[in-house]
Amino acid sequence: MVGADAAGMSAASQARRRRDHRDLEIVAFERGWHTSYSACGIPYWIAGLVEEQDDLIARTPDQHRERNIDIRAGHTVTGIDLDRRTVTVRETSGGESEHGFDQLVIATGGEPVRPDWPGIDGKGVHGVQTLEDGEAVSASLRARDAERAVVIGGGYIGVEMAEALIRQGLGVTLVERAAQPMTTLDPDMGALVTDALKNLGVEVRTGVTVEGIELDDDGWVRAVTTDAGEFAADVVVLGLGTRPGVALARDAGLPIGPSGGIVTDRRMRVPGHDGIWAAGDCVEVVHRVTGRPAAIPLGTHANKQGRVAGINIGGGYATFPGVVGTAVTKLCDLEIARTGLREAEAEQAGFAYVTATIESHTVAGYYPGADTITVKLVAERGTGRLLGGQIVGGQGAAKRIDVLAVAIWNTMTVDEMTGLDLAYAPPFSPVWDPVLVAARAASDAAQ
Amino acid sequence: MVGADAAGMSAASQARRRRDHRDLEIVAFERGWHTSYSACGIPYWIAGLVEEQDDLIARTPDQHRERNIDIRAGHTVTGIDLDRRTVTVRETSGGESEHGFDQLVIATGGEPVRPDWPGIDGKGVHGVQTLEDGEAVSASLRARDAERAVVIGGGYIGVEMAEALIRQGLGVTLVERAAQPMTTLDPDMGALVTDALKNLGVEVRTGVTVEGIELDDDGWVRAVTTDAGEFAADVVVLGLGTRPGVALARDAGLPIGPSGGIVTDRRMRVPGHDGIWAAGDCVEVVHRVTGRPAAIPLGTHANKQGRVAGINIGGGYATFPGVVGTAVTKLCDLEIARTGLREAEAEQAGFAYVTATIESHTVAGYYPGADTITVKLVAERGTGRLLGGQIVGGQGAAKRIDVLAVAIWNTMTVDEMTGLDLAYAPPFSPVWDPVLVAARAASDAAQ
Repeated sequence: MVGADAAGMSAASQARRRRDHRDLEIVAFERGWHTSYSACGIPYWIAGLVEEQDDLIARTPDQHRERNIDIRAGHTVTGIDLDRRTVTVRETSGGESEHGFDQLVIATGGEPVRPDWPGIDGKGVHGVQTLEDGEAVSASLRARDAERAVVIGGGYIGVEMAEALIRQGLGVTLVERAAQPMTTLDPDMGALVTDALKNLGVEVRTGVTVEGIELDDDGWVRAVTTDAGEFAADVVVLGLGTRPGVALARDAGLPIGPSGGIVTDRRMRVPGHDGIWAAGDCVEVVHRVTGRPAAIPLGTHANKQGRVAGINIGGGYATFPGVVGTAVTKLCDLEIARTGLREAEAEQAGFAYVTATIESHTVAGYYPGADTITVKLVAERGTGRLLGGQIVGGQGAAKRIDVLAVAIWNTMTVDEMTGLDLAYAPPFSPVWDPVLVAARAASDAAQ
Repeated sequence: MVGADAAGMSAASQARRRRDHRDLEIVAFERGWHTSYSACGIPYWIAGLVEEQDDLIARTPDQHRERNIDIRAGHTVTGIDLDRRTVTVRETSGGESEHGFDQLVIATGGEPVRPDWPGIDGKGVHGVQTLEDGEAVSASLRARDAERAVVIGGGYIGVEMAEALIRQGLGVTLVERAAQPMTTLDPDMGALVTDALKNLGVEVRTGVTVEGIELDDDGWVRAVTTDAGEFAADVVVLGLGTRPGVALARDAGLPIGPSGGIVTDRRMRVPGHDGIWAAGDCVEVVHRVTGRPAAIPLGTHANKQGRVAGINIGGGYATFPGVVGTAVTKLCDLEIARTGLREAEAEQAGFAYVTATIESHTVAGYYPGADTITVKLVAERGTGRLLGGQIVGGQGAAKRIDVLAVAIWNTMTVDEMTGLDLAYAPPFSPVWDPVLVAARAASDAAQ
């Protein structure tokens, strides 16, 4: 294994289940010091909602070792020789060694996008990809008694970190290049997120391009400079997303796809390279709606892909069937979810489409705690095939996206969806679930 | 329209949308005094969670009249003459009249099961089907300064009413003939509901057959007598479910199916009887898993069926595609849901099946508010086709049943379900959603 987080360790666990240590030796090299942790949980830890860093760790290196998985933390794989079937490993101590393999799982994760801005390597400027990053953010907050933060990028991590830093008592400015944060939603739905950010007290600056980061004489961040002026900051968080981490695979001559991820087949094998597997944020997957490759970094995909690779390595049979682009987050009480294609993606994929947006309640309107929910559907014109959906609303809103995800998976039409037998009782839904109301509206629009 | 609640008024509204009052006169006869109300909300009103009875009313007779739907409340249809195309109507005042029709929608709802026990007509003995029933329960509670209630029957209404009466400060005994309450679940899952009822302070008496109701000299209930002794009661609530209300249809010679409901085609027409439609709790529907007819009284089905009938009457085209048996309720913080077939139903339908039951968390285990969730799946042996699912757990558990409902709708296998792209973020789900964990376990079991 190269990488011992979600994908690598899922693969190791599944392979170990099927083949014991006399039959298969499993060694996992990990650049960092932690294994099997929830990177997605870091913003909640910084927010103080999760108390201990350890809570984010599903299995420590020692726990893996007990299951005869040999974890080598602080070991960076620097090269793969496919002909000799060896990897070159550099230890933090400086030593370098070679290790042979029969099967190799590349689970190198994602590389944070980190533009070449002046000052980006200053103190107090942090990504939020690894547990070490999370520790560094916390340390900077303490070291500086920080009062002002600038979050660059309004995607999932950016929005979650903006909330986390507000909860820690900081003044927060969110800087986003696009017209709305949360560009995985259509702008009309993203506007609901902007409103919620503003209500939370975040200063939202959209359509703003960052030019650099000003440092003080000690090398600490002082401000973020942009084409719309300067924003003071004691801490800067980069929420610019990740790209597949493929340097190692590319250098080894493995195929990299159009989305920038390592190419695999459905069993997570790298085609044309017997015994070489890849899984997690470093691979590209098939988007089931467009039929095209996509790179979508997400812990749940990494776990599934790792499991598939591990089952196959263990002698079983499993496949990863692709994704439909589901994602979810929340901002205080506002739940935000999407799946399938948003308008721009439908356009780009060549679909003629209609949209329908409805407002309803999360539970029966008369039941205590009823909150608003907005559901937007994108459906193919004519056929009415559901192409995508977006949901923003109060408690209980977001997980309804799963209904849309399963409907898209099964290429349902919005017309057929109007008949779906979804659970109804007043504490859970209006008598017409908002998803059904949206399906009715989209069905009318598609005809 | 015969009946002016969910089904009748959905039909009326849809027909009116497509044909105006110069083209189509719509008259709705309603036995009671209320229209378009949420019977499912009655327990929450009695519990004090919903303040006003009026909150349960979606549209009053006057609001319907404004849309040119002529509501005649307090009018009971006593006969249908199919040849002469007339209905006979008796008014509460005693007058009787005849009315002709071109199209007739029978939306007579369900009839509460009301066994022929001695004392069942005593004061303080109530069903909970109509708003009038709800008023009567409240009046009895006040009139008697009631301290003890017996709820007979542990289905949805029984469980919801047990909680409502506990919230009103009564001591509550729940009497159920079966080995567990909530017999729409398998006994192992029903046991979780029993535990929750007991924790709430309800005395749960299962395997008990009611023999009669003891009345005092004023005709008020005093106790419920059973084969396990006598249970004191100031108020008795009957939660024995409903049967399709088909007396009128049967007398008119319309076809009644094996499940006891009026037979319709997919457009909600009564076959062989031009211009006669039926919708709501009085009809039988196709269960999509068994392929057999079933009578499932539920407001959301009634609304859908009424809508379908109304669209067709209005000159459009719509069909009701059947149900998969989804239902949901909650008991304090415990959410309870089911869809498809439970074990006994799978057996009865002739399926060879396997089951898998897993325990997980509603959200990431480390996230605040994480609660337990139990998911049980029933899958066809060999093929792995998902036949049914049951979920019991904390907040956010129950609506996950919709994922299973859509999967069953699309005849997915549990193996394919392991790849579903369900929404993941720590505040919403563990990295493997409990539904996926259950699908993995069922997939292993089905092979």
